[in-house]
Parts: sequence; structure tokens; C-alpha cells
Amino acid sequence: MQACKHTARYVSRVLTTILLCLWCYSALADNVSKVEKWGIFELTLDGPVKGNPFLDVQLSATFTHANMSINVDGFYDGKGQFKIRFMPEKTGTWRYTTFSNNWELSNKRGEIRVTPPQQGNHGPVGVVNTFHFAYADGTPFKQVGTTSYTWTHRPEKIEQQTLASLATSPFNKLRMCVFPQTHGSRAMPPKRFPFLGKSTKPDYTRFNPKFFQHLEKRVGQLRELGIEADLILFHPYDDNHIWGLDNMPPEVEERYLQYIVARLSAYRNVWWSMANEFDFVRTKKDEDWDRNFKTVMAADPYKHLRSIHNGKRFYDNTKPWVTHASIQNGFAVTSPGTAQLYRDVYNKPIVYDEVEYEGNHSSRWAQLSGKELVHRFWSGTVAGTYVGHSEFFVAPGDKDPFVWLGQGGTLKGESPTRLAFLKKILEQSPAEGIEPIDKWWNPNIGGQANNYYLLYFGRETPTEWSFELKGKGITEGGTFAVDIIDTWNMTITPVEGLFTVQARDKYSFGDKDNRVISLPGKEGIALRITRFHNN
Amino acid sequence: MQACKHTARYVSRVLTTILLCLWCYSALADNVSKVEKWGIFELTLDGPVKGNPFLDVQLSATFTHANMSINVDGFYDGKGQFKIRFMPEKTGTWRYTTFSNNWELSNKRGEIRVTPPQQGNHGPVGVVNTFHFAYADGTPFKQVGTTSYTWTHRPEKIEQQTLASLATSPFNKLRMCVFPQTHGSRAMPPKRFPFLGKSTKPDYTRFNPKFFQHLEKRVGQLRELGIEADLILFHPYDDNHIWGLDNMPPEVEERYLQYIVARLSAYRNVWWSMANEFDFVRTKKDEDWDRNFKTVMAADPYKHLRSIHNGKRFYDNTKPWVTHASIQNGFAVTSPGTAQLYRDVYNKPIVYDEVEYEGNHSSRWAQLSGKELVHRFWSGTVAGTYVGHSEFFVAPGDKDPFVWLGQGGTLKGESPTRLAFLKKILEQSPAEGIEPIDKWWNPNIGGQANNYYLLYFGRETPTEWSFELKGKGITEGGTFAVDIIDTWNMTITPVEGLFTVQARDKYSFGDKDNRVISLPGKEGIALRITRFHNN
Repeated sequence: MQACKHTARYVSRVLTTILLCLWCYSALADNVSKVEKWGIFELTLDGPVKGNPFLDVQLSATFTHANMSINVDGFYDGKGQFKIRFMPEKTGTWRYTTFSNNWELSNKRGEIRVTPPQQGNHGPVGVVNTFHFAYADGTPFKQVGTTSYTWTHRPEKIEQQTLASLATSPFNKLRMCVFPQTHGSRAMPPKRFPFLGKSTKPDYTRFNPKFFQHLEKRVGQLRELGIEADLILFHPYDDNHIWGLDNMPPEVEERYLQYIVARLSAYRNVWWSMANEFDFVRTKKDEDWDRNFKTVMAADPYKHLRSIHNGKRFYDNTKPWVTHASIQNGFAVTSPGTAQLYRDVYNKPIVYDEVEYEGNHSSRWAQLSGKELVHRFWSGTVAGTYVGHSEFFVAPGDKDPFVWLGQGGTLKGESPTRLAFLKKILEQSPAEGIEPIDKWWNPNIGGQANNYYLLYFGRETPTEWSFELKGKGITEGGTFAVDIIDTWNMTITPVEGLFTVQARDKYSFGDKDNRVISLPGKEGIALRITRFHNN
Repeated sequence: MQACKHTARYVSRVLTTILLCLWCYSALADNVSKVEKWGIFELTLDGPVKGNPFLDVQLSATFTHANMSINVDGFYDGKGQFKIRFMPEKTGTWRYTTFSNNWELSNKRGEIRVTPPQQGNHGPVGVVNTFHFAYADGTPFKQVGTTSYTWTHRPEKIEQQTLASLATSPFNKLRMCVFPQTHGSRAMPPKRFPFLGKSTKPDYTRFNPKFFQHLEKRVGQLRELGIEADLILFHPYDDNHIWGLDNMPPEVEERYLQYIVARLSAYRNVWWSMANEFDFVRTKKDEDWDRNFKTVMAADPYKHLRSIHNGKRFYDNTKPWVTHASIQNGFAVTSPGTAQLYRDVYNKPIVYDEVEYEGNHSSRWAQLSGKELVHRFWSGTVAGTYVGHSEFFVAPGDKDPFVWLGQGGTLKGESPTRLAFLKKILEQSPAEGIEPIDKWWNPNIGGQANNYYLLYFGRETPTEWSFELKGKGITEGGTFAVDIIDTWNMTITPVEGLFTVQARDKYSFGDKDNRVISLPGKEGIALRITRFHNN
């Protein structure tokens, strides 16, 4: 009997092992997926619909690759479907296992074969060289941004129009609100709302999957256009807390942030903008924003860029969770180079996301000429900073206007064409970024010393310029080519011949033949001075 | 026997108590001092000379007043003398007790009768209204500073000359180094050295009391002149660490800071400037400066103002131990109002302690015209910030110059007279301080809305000005008087009549009669627009 018992146990164990192996094999065989690097792997699992799956079900997965391991949160997408999205940052084989407090969702395993990225996929954007940006594959990202706050809350036709406008625009970053706004909402009643329930009495415990599915579709389309989506997570434009989206309890904010990060962080083109005009959200203190930043930082496995945009008062952008300063301040870019001042205090990329808008509004923050906005871009550029565009053109008598800034649609201003021209020049500029060359004495010159100089005359109207390079690191005897750039008429006129530098005094180098360059004597002229390498 | 023993014990106790009371009374009677509020009470005690009293002896005292108690460190002043200095911040009776690890210095008690401050004594300067300064008695402190780095390391005659120059100057704050400098030291060999031993091989464990006694005498003289002494605790001008004062071990730095704070914090006119051009001290990291700030903050019972002055790179002035930003950046004050940009990030008073100097040096940081320096003061003033002066005039062929910036002596420039004129205007300006009125749209107007406006045209040369007030808080129908100020020729020309404001658009108020003011059409003109109260 004893021997018999042992044998039976042994057979049972062997059978169990074989079955387990077969199950594992079939599970693996079923679950081998292919995805490109920085693409999105999505796992969909059926789970419980009872109770409140948003609150009741915890779901995550661990993705492993060699000795790298990444935890990713899943989310409930409605109709009994749970999802986990993952953006692999390495090619080769990844394996995953799910974890959940629900057995149906737990211990799901699989394998992902990650292929090299396809053309146009450079990965997410990060900070490089303290003040600049690059994609994960090293390609420089020269930010030329625009803003359209609630373009994803429009009828399909208009949203398609916005996408078409963006496709032919120079803009490679779009600031956009997740939430709709009540402010001026006659022109944009909320088609979709982030929570279930009525918009005037939302159920803060249940998200509206359709709302987020729509948002994701748009973010994905921006990604295909090569446009970064700078997602504004909160804004103050919910007059008198009609919907309460600017007034949610901390635990709801935390759930919302975890939910949106779980849904969207696998999109490589996502940036997190904690708030627009954060200081106009009167219900929140700086500690609340600190906490929300920490929530996002903890939830996002890819560490997408994080910032917060100010109204009148600045957030302390030196805080470690702020990756770059997102600044509203039109004045700082009214003259060439002034914009550099914030570089010295933040030691992070400076993006002037709001410098007033091109437009014809009665409010002075939306009545810049195209020329003035282009001037502000150039003023910020030579200071080693980045600038953002938007426009606000109102038809006469229109009290509830439909404008690019709020609703998207078509671009009407004169600046985008000139910003496309600037963008081309930026794309040809040094990969390391444009740095102030002689910051406190010649703030209007940016570039890389001894290699590349961009000198912007701004509102000055010089008729000639005696060749002169400023600052440190210049090699005597080096030769340079000069282009005269008309920033408004978009011409680049090469100056004949090369210039050979010779020290003039301890701060400047002139041309050895003291050559003087004739200039057109109008505003908005820049010079591009490039080291000529004769090899 | 038992009764007898009890009686003897009782008599002994009574006698002891009587003797103790008599001793206490005599001790108190001997030790009643009188000092004015914010004056200096100094207690001198004889103590041990054996061993190293700087290291071996710990001495402090507790000063109490009602339910307030303040701990103050003492210090060894050489020749067997130990001192404790105390600046009472309340009138009335204070009592003290000393504590020491040496019995001779321990448990000394006494009483101080603190009288109201005498005329001219307004107490130490602190921060008010976020961006401004006031003395402890509430008198506004409108900073008009200058710098003379090593004026206390000169022959007596020269130092007297410096004091005489300061006495007739407008300057109410002087930035000065504690340590001598080797840089350019042919013109200033170190007369006194902070440590005993040779200057090339200092004994870091023994301070030189004479060095500090001299410094204190000068700080006291500045106090009598109503000048704040912004003491620079470290500087990088010890070329190649000849003396090692820029290169001391952390524990020596700590002892030095505790020693100087113990000696000097009772001087009400002391400010602590942690370093000059801190980033040029190549031996130290930001963590070292953080630590040193904490040492000073912990040691100073009066919490004198604390700052750190930058070279090219900024310290993080948002840190809590920095009371105000002490900035080197000449560019920020080249145009009216630009200087405000650092207000938004620091939310502390902004003092542009170095904006280049008036002078004729070959280096561009010391070749401003007097006009340019005065212009920079006005540019910073209307931005709600403060500016500092110094000068560097070299005689032809003088390779090791003797100048105000380094050595003191006499003032040669054209700016001080004009800064005295500016100072008078500041003294008549609102106690609350000058604030940017319409910061991103009209940066050249500072003041207090609806009450006082200072508008500076800078390099512009207008020939007329249509009366117009900008920004919020203006009461329609209010009347204003206007003065035309020539900042260089120091004239104040009242414009005839009063102006009555009437809204023009949502951002500006004009004169109800649209009056236009004639202006002289030259540079450096300002307008002072003051609310006229008819009562």
C-alpha cells in the first residue's frame, strides 16, 4: 500500500508538470506580439463588470528584458475590458506577467518581440545639454509649439480640420487641455465628459472610457504627424466650478492622474503639463501641485516631460519634478536675448509657452501682429530658449468666437509661414542647441562658440555691420561664411566670400580685412555666421 | 542631642540662605548695565589662557526678558579675555546667565536695563512686503549700495578717508570682504590676517583677535554713519590659494563662521553675504554653501539678512536660508523694467549688487559712464528692485590700481551725486516699496497703484507725453500731480495743474481733458505721478 501510494503521487506530479508546461507553452504561443521600439503594446483582458471596476480592480504588469524590469499600471476601459499599455524602450524580447486582485486578470503572461523603430519614430522627447531637447534616439527636438486648448472637444469635422491644419503647419508641439472648458462654452458645449454621470453632477468614481478613447485617438494622430502632445491636466477655465473639474478632492485628482497616465503614457509623444495658468486655479495651493506632480512622476514609467504653466505668479520651477520651465511672459521675449534671464535661475530648458497671441481680440494678450509674434520667437531663439505660438482672430461682432487658441480649425495668421522658415533654420543649427554666446554683453547672439552664430537685430534697422564675433573660444585665423536672413520675408542671402577672424580686443574678433557687410536697413534682420571647414 | 543637631542644621541653613542672597544681591548690584534697544551689551570675563582657548573653551549666555529667552555664543578675544555680545530687541529688563565648560566663566549673572533707541537707531534691516526692506522699527530701508571689497585692509589714513567719503555719499549699504585678497595685492599687502601664524601658513585653530577687533571698529563706524555692512564671508580672490582662505576644511569654515557671528551679530547693521562670485570659488560645491548658510543661520540669534553673490552661475536663491537675491547681472538693468524678471522667480527682494562699475578700466565690467550707471539704477528702481554702485578709475599707466572698488579712498565718479538725488526721491516714495504696476506690458512703470507712479523713459527721448495711467486699481475721477524728473541734471519740474483720470479702455486711464505734457526730448527722463489728496 505504501509503495502504491508513492507511485500514485509520483504519477500525479509528473502529469501536473506536463500539463502545466503545455499550458505555459500554449499561453506563450498565443501571446507573442510584435511591436516597434517606442510603439505601443496593448494587452486587453476580460474582467469583472460587477461593482465598480474603476475602484475595485487593481491591475498591473511587469515587463522584463534581460535584467531590466518595468511595472506598468493597467486600467478599466469599460464593458468588462481591462487594458495594459506598454511602450518598450529596447528592441529584442520582452516578457510580461500581470498582477491583479482579480483572478481573471492575474498571472497572464506573454512575450513581445520589439523591432527597431520605423521611419519617423524617434522615441519620446527628453532634456539634453541642460537647456535643450532631443528625442530618445538622439535627434534634436527644436521646439516650435502652438496651443489649441480644447480642440478635442469639437465636432468630428472641425477636429479633422484642426489635424489637417497641423499637418501643413510648422508646429511640432501642441498644448491641449484634457478637460473641456465651460468658459466661452456656448461655442463648445462639452460633447464628452471625463466622468460618468451628468457634467453638472459627475460621478467622480467612474471615468468615461469614451472620453479618454477619443483623447487617445487624437494623441495618436498627433504622434503620426510628428507632433508632441503637451497634455494640460488641469485648467482654471471652469467658471465658478460649474463642472467642478478645477475643484476635485485630492483623492479624485490622484485617481484621475493615475488613470490618465496608465492610459496615455505609452504614447511616446506625450508631455505632462500639470496645469494651465496654475495660479488662477484658486482652489489649489502649491502643495497640491507638488503632490500631483509626485503622483504623475510615480505613475509614469517613461518619465515623460513635466511642466506647469503660470498665470501671473510663477511656480517654483527649480523643484526636481519640473523638467522644464513652461512660462507665460510676453515681455521677456520683446527684445533679443532678454529671455535668457530665466535660464540662469532654472538651469532647465525654458519654453515660453505663452507670449501673447497673434490676433485681433480686444484684449491685449491676443492682439499681436504676425510680425511681433515672429519677432518674439527670434528674440527667444537667440537667447537659447523656445517659444510658443497661438492665434485669436475674431470675426467682427462675434461675441463667442471660434478661434485656433480655443477650438482649433484653421490657421488665419501671418506668423505660421515665418515660423516654418525659422524652424528650417533651427533644424540646420547645431544639434547641441543655441546657447547665449556672450550673455550679459551681447545678449542678441546665440549659437555654439567658434562654430555657429545667430545674431538677431530685432527692431534695430542697421544698414551695415562690421564683421565681429564676440565671446570666448574663437580660434584666430578661422574662416566664416555669413548669411543675411530676413525673418519676415523669409530670404537667406549669402554674403560673398569668407571672413577670417583676427583678435580685436580681449572680447571680440573682427575680420582680418575689416570687411563691412551691407544690410537692408529694416527690422527683423538676422545674421547666420557659420564656421567654414575646408576639408 | 537630637534637638541640638536639628537646631544646628537649621541655623546653618538660614545662614547659607542669607549669604546666598547677599551674594546674589551683590552680584546683581555689580552687574546692572544700561544699553539702548538694538545697541550692544558686552560682557567681558577673565578666563584661562592655557591650552587653546579658541578650541577648548565653550561659552554662551542666555538672555531672558519676560517669557522670551535668547541664547548667545561668546568668543575668546585673546589675552585671557572672553566676551559675550548681545543686541537686545526689546526695551525693559533683561537678565542673563552664562554657561561654560570652564568654571571661571560659568554661571555669571546680571541684569540689563534696555532703554528706547536713540535717534538714528532704527534697528536691523529685514524683509518687508516680499520684495522690500525696512528697519526693525518700521522705517523703510531704500537700498542704495556701494562696494569696496577690502577697504578695511588699508593703512589707517586711507581707511579714514574711505569713512569720510562714505559720510558724504548717498550709500546706505556697503559690500565689503572680511578677508583680505592676494589678487592685486601689491597695492594691498595684508596688514592683518584672520588667523594667527603666518599668512602663508596660518594656524587654523587660532583666530587673530586684532584682525576682528579692527573689523568690528569699522563696522561700528559704518553703523554710526547709518550704513549697513554687507559682510562678504568668503571670496575667490586668493589666487592659487596663496593663503588658503578660499580653501579651508569644512570644520575650519564652521569655526570661522561661528566665531565671526559670535563677534559681529550684535552689530545691528550687519548683513551676511556668504560669498562674492561664489561660483568662482572652485574648491566649493553648492552643498558647501548650503552647509555654511545653515551654520550662520543657526549661530545668529537675530537672523540678519543672508545672501550670496554670483559670478556667472546663479546659486539657487529659492533656498529658504537666502533672504534676498544678491545678483551680478548688468544686462538685467540695461533697460527700464527688465530687472523685474527675477522677482517672479524668487519672491524675495532683488538686489543687483553688481551691474558693472563706473570707470575707465580696460575690462568691460569696469568702464561704464556715470550716465550709464545712473540709468541702470533707475531701470532697476522702476522694476521694484534695488541696485548697487561701485567705481574703478585707473590713472594712466597704473598697472596695480588703487580704486574704490578694491581699496576705498575717495570717490571719483559722476554717479554718486545722481544717486543721492535718486535716493531722495526714493525716500519720498511709498513706504511699501515700488512695485511693477503693469509688469508685462508697461515694465517701465513702478509704484503703488492709484497712489504713486514712477515712469522712467530710459534711453528714449520723448518730447511729449499724453497723460495716461496703466494697470489695475485706479479710481475714476482721482486727481494726480506730475513732476518731470531729469535723472542726470537732478531737476524736478512740477507740471502745472492737476490731472483727473478717466477710463480710456480696460487697461488705461487718461486725463479727462486729454492733456499732453511737454518733455525735454532727451535721455534719462522720469515722471513722478502722485495722487493728490484734497484734505
